[in-house]
Amino acid sequence: MFYTLRVRSHEREELVEFTDQVQKELASANQQEGVVVLYVQHTTAGLTVNENADPDVPRDMLHLLRTLIPQHGMGFRHGEENSDAHIKATLVGSSVTIPFREGKLLLGRWQGVFLCEFDGGRERQVIMIVK
Amino acid sequence: MFYTLRVRSHEREELVEFTDQVQKELASANQQEGVVVLYVQHTTAGLTVNENADPDVPRDMLHLLRTLIPQHGMGFRHGEENSDAHIKATLVGSSVTIPFREGKLLLGRWQGVFLCEFDGGRERQVIMIVK
Amino acid sequence: MFYTLRVRSHEREELVEFTDQVQKELASANQQEGVVVLYVQHTTAGLTVNENADPDVPRDMLHLLRTLIPQHGMGFRHGEENSDAHIKATLVGSSVTIPFREGKLLLGRWQGVFLCEFDGGRERQVIMIVK
Repeated sequence: MFYTLRVRSHEREELVEFTDQVQKELASANQQEGVVVLYVQHTTAGLTVNENADPDVPRDMLHLLRTLIPQHGMGFRHGEENSDAHIKATLVGSSVTIPFREGKLLLGRWQGVFLCEFDGGRERQVIMIVK
Repeated sequence: MFYTLRVRSHEREELVEFTDQVQKELASANQQEGVVVLYVQHTTAGLTVNENADPDVPRDMLHLLRTLIPQHGMGFRHGEENSDAHIKATLVGSSVTIPFREGKLLLGRWQGVFLCEFDGGRERQVIMIVK
Repeated sequence: MFYTLRVRSHEREELVEFTDQVQKELASANQQEGVVVLYVQHTTAGLTVNENADPDVPRDMLHLLRTLIPQHGMGFRHGEENSDAHIKATLVGSSVTIPFREGKLLLGRWQGVFLCEFDGGRERQVIMIVK
């Protein structure tokens, strides 16, 4: 089953949690067990699973990535001045795969699903497949 | 089919190979071909496939990650002082997908499956699905 | 369905697009919808999805990775002097999962599939599964 999720970012760099959207579509799929695949159709945003309890975790993540891979001053040639965003997207990855059982994502206690926005704010499209 | 694997680390940072556990459960699944999905239910550990012949490869990997993303002195705000571990987990990723045929993982000659521990030692839980 | 793709690199570090090979095999699979899993059977190469319009994007990506993780001078111990390649492979990842519909990869407008070569030039083997 296919779903198209829309996730909205408001900053150039932002981790936007959308676990609830995924869980809601999964419930409607009415399937007992399997995996959910999420795939982002963009080249300057990625997907990750990480802690959703303390907002300082996503903040520290973006801070560190910005320190290692700054937007300017690295000798990038790509004319749109967002090479940093492309690189961060590849390092984080364009898809996540999460198992589910009894219609519920098998996330660990502290895990949430995040869109990693590196060149926003924008509306981003995430394809979700239940297998 | 679902399995829960337990993988034990003994250091704060450690790459723990568990290829044999995966292969053993796969054999018991009695399925000819498909993919194995492994998913770690934690936010300070990841999963990767890399060389399992020379222990200097995992050692160099942890050394480099520690150099780029040290635990202290980076301006992190998360109070548990393990932001470095959360970031490394996201960069490595929370899942791996490996094809199999005739009941055997289609690993390359030098490939092994590793839990990437970044905030141990602990017992970690890895969900395994055969599809 | 299983396919073995061969992807040839010519430089030590190179991003080699092979979207057309994947799309061609997918068309022959004659399956309406699902996911394509690509898996690289090597420990010094990875797979990613990123922009295939401007060649400066892959160039900037390799440039940045080389800056952060140089081949020499980092205190690596692995005797083959390619620890940098193993680390880059783990950061990029050994597999990608891409949804498809009506026999076509659901890639975003600017997305292509790349082999990330970090220790070439060589012929690399990529397993492709249609699920």
